[in-house]
Amino acid sequence: MIFSEKANAIVGQSGGPTAAINATLAGVISAALDSDKIDVLYGARNGVEGMLREDVIDLSDIFGASDKNEKLERLSATPSAALGSCRVKLPPVDDAANNEKYIKLFNFFKKMNIRYFFYIGGNDSMDTVSKLSAVCDKFDWDMNFVGVPKTIDNDLDVTDHTPGYGSCAKFIATVMSEMLCDTAVYTVKAVTIVEIMGRDTGWLTAASALSAVNTGIGPDYIYLPETDFDYERFFKDVENAFSKHPNVVIAVSEGLHFADGRLVGEGMQSGATDVFGHKYLDGTAKALELAVKERFGCKVRSVELNLPQRCASHIASLTDIKESFGVGSAAVESALNGDSDCMMCIKREGNGEKYAVSYKSVAIELVANRIKYVPDDFINEEGNNVTDKCIEYMLPLVQGCAPYFTQNGIPEFLILSK
Amino acid sequence: MIFSEKANAIVGQSGGPTAAINATLAGVISAALDSDKIDVLYGARNGVEGMLREDVIDLSDIFGASDKNEKLERLSATPSAALGSCRVKLPPVDDAANNEKYIKLFNFFKKMNIRYFFYIGGNDSMDTVSKLSAVCDKFDWDMNFVGVPKTIDNDLDVTDHTPGYGSCAKFIATVMSEMLCDTAVYTVKAVTIVEIMGRDTGWLTAASALSAVNTGIGPDYIYLPETDFDYERFFKDVENAFSKHPNVVIAVSEGLHFADGRLVGEGMQSGATDVFGHKYLDGTAKALELAVKERFGCKVRSVELNLPQRCASHIASLTDIKESFGVGSAAVESALNGDSDCMMCIKREGNGEKYAVSYKSVAIELVANRIKYVPDDFINEEGNNVTDKCIEYMLPLVQGCAPYFTQNGIPEFLILSK
Repeated sequence: MIFSEKANAIVGQSGGPTAAINATLAGVISAALDSDKIDVLYGARNGVEGMLREDVIDLSDIFGASDKNEKLERLSATPSAALGSCRVKLPPVDDAANNEKYIKLFNFFKKMNIRYFFYIGGNDSMDTVSKLSAVCDKFDWDMNFVGVPKTIDNDLDVTDHTPGYGSCAKFIATVMSEMLCDTAVYTVKAVTIVEIMGRDTGWLTAASALSAVNTGIGPDYIYLPETDFDYERFFKDVENAFSKHPNVVIAVSEGLHFADGRLVGEGMQSGATDVFGHKYLDGTAKALELAVKERFGCKVRSVELNLPQRCASHIASLTDIKESFGVGSAAVESALNGDSDCMMCIKREGNGEKYAVSYKSVAIELVANRIKYVPDDFINEEGNNVTDKCIEYMLPLVQGCAPYFTQNGIPEFLILSK
Repeated sequence: MIFSEKANAIVGQSGGPTAAINATLAGVISAALDSDKIDVLYGARNGVEGMLREDVIDLSDIFGASDKNEKLERLSATPSAALGSCRVKLPPVDDAANNEKYIKLFNFFKKMNIRYFFYIGGNDSMDTVSKLSAVCDKFDWDMNFVGVPKTIDNDLDVTDHTPGYGSCAKFIATVMSEMLCDTAVYTVKAVTIVEIMGRDTGWLTAASALSAVNTGIGPDYIYLPETDFDYERFFKDVENAFSKHPNVVIAVSEGLHFADGRLVGEGMQSGATDVFGHKYLDGTAKALELAVKERFGCKVRSVELNLPQRCASHIASLTDIKESFGVGSAAVESALNGDSDCMMCIKREGNGEKYAVSYKSVAIELVANRIKYVPDDFINEEGNNVTDKCIEYMLPLVQGCAPYFTQNGIPEFLILSK
């Protein structure tokens, strides 16, 4: 719906942090401040959690001064979610009119005259946007709900890629290049197994292949969860790599599984699940480390890239940070134009040297609760590496170094206080 | 001994790689090329291993062209040991005259007219320099042996700090700052335990405290192997941190141990030892993760910073890279001046804004097989954090960003081929 009256807006962040989620927030703030249709842009602390406890800050005020651009640039260079995050799953929409949470939320929106809702998050966050859009008419309060994607996992459908993925991919490619130098120095046989984030999809693990772009030296093998894992084939691959050089490097996704669906790291994990029912994974590389040690008796090391992957602002991709900002601004334009129940997507308009993108909104039902896997033609026939087509897809996303601020040799971040 | 005739020199790298060890190599190359007393500088592949198999490259030739400076700068920005490394421990010196290895080495030195020997490495590498110096006179071939320190561990005696430490400390401080942003986003109680390299000493773990320099937000507690670890005191610390905020972050050294000397991660480790008899450590953070989970029942996560710590050239400290180069050049001057059986040291000539260093050579017996621990006044009374004095010591070492080359958004390194 297009609102003729000036109204307020709210923005929240949700799900796991990335190095680019604050650039998207900066994009939303920038466009909201530039618009004469938005009065105040509120920032919800901890996403929907903050809206439920009416814990918001006035972003129009914080960023309204003459140092706006400098502040926005500093916010863009700050990793993780500056507003805080949450992992709230809203209840089913059937009985929303009698549900305490929905009642609280819409009373709050009405009271604050909020007509525009921006939610920056991953797959589960789009579920929140979809539900709020669906129940809106039950509360006699019109609002436009727009989801803004972010996830290092790159597993959202429709969008060419997700904001946050490029920076994480750049960190992975960079430290993989460095680790390949590190592991190459000895002459004794050794296997290094690098575990990379990715519960369902191998997008991030695939990025380890980018380390070979300049030197021709990448991981010997790359295993993604899109391909069933088999120990005997894996051992043959390791043997084959040893026939070429003593230092074998292998990249694996945390979500690697056998043909029967059992996780490779299953013996290693606690079995605990998060609120969305996802299993906490642990120890895929550790399981492979033990298997290689038993089979080959050589030196084996497992490296889990872990948290630094998703918050390494110091090596963020300029392309990613720019697009993350762009998609945030585009979300505001979209909402002002009357779009709702939608998610912003990135459309690739050219590749290679002609790489360019545009932003468009799509119906959220096309995106929510779906997973975009690494396609077949991005994975080689043997299922142990990626193809050139995959490299061509990833490479534009890691271009350029985003601005990064330091003082005393240490990063300086923008902390949003009340 | 001062040699009046022009002669050749050899340089090798040994021990674990760092982000700065190639800057020291660049410093050796630069000074050797500038000297009219050195004819050819050879680079030994894989340290002493390469000398034993006569596997050397001609560095004077490789770096002798007009693009010398550019190549040296690129070498300085390349992580790990460009010449390859080794972990060879030379046999005792008592019967060196009849020992095959020593005979081979000195025959090789004579044949190649090598009078200057530079060995870039850590504690164990200084043992090699010391032994070769000690047996030199038995082979009727005068040579000057100079050790050039490098170790991320900063645990060499006499020198104010070791080349390689500053870059590793900068990486740790940087990713710790980023992880503190990352872990702060949720409102549910959670503990994040970050394991940092350091078998015997806590120098690297102490660097995690630098993350607080700008924001005041650092790890809640920092435990070093210089202090005996005690679970009950640790649990009290965690409780105390929870009384202030829900997201607790703790930094621990891999070598953390109890009062009786048992390692905290002992139950987790394989018990395997390297050629120097050091135990391979594994799972200190993992052990603490399980303990916290059992005691507090909250979300706990362990993060091992692992390999990227020691090879993260993309965030190397400019101060460290400059000093690493400087100490390499100073080693050549020292050897030309007749020094032998010595190691180059960094002397701090001023602190804070007046930070400055000089290089000097010291008798290697003062350094070899000794360990420099974090001193008492760098650790607080409770043994769970570092003091301001420690911060003052570390801060100058992480200043500035070293040049870092990329192509296609990915690091570009200098690979030394024959």
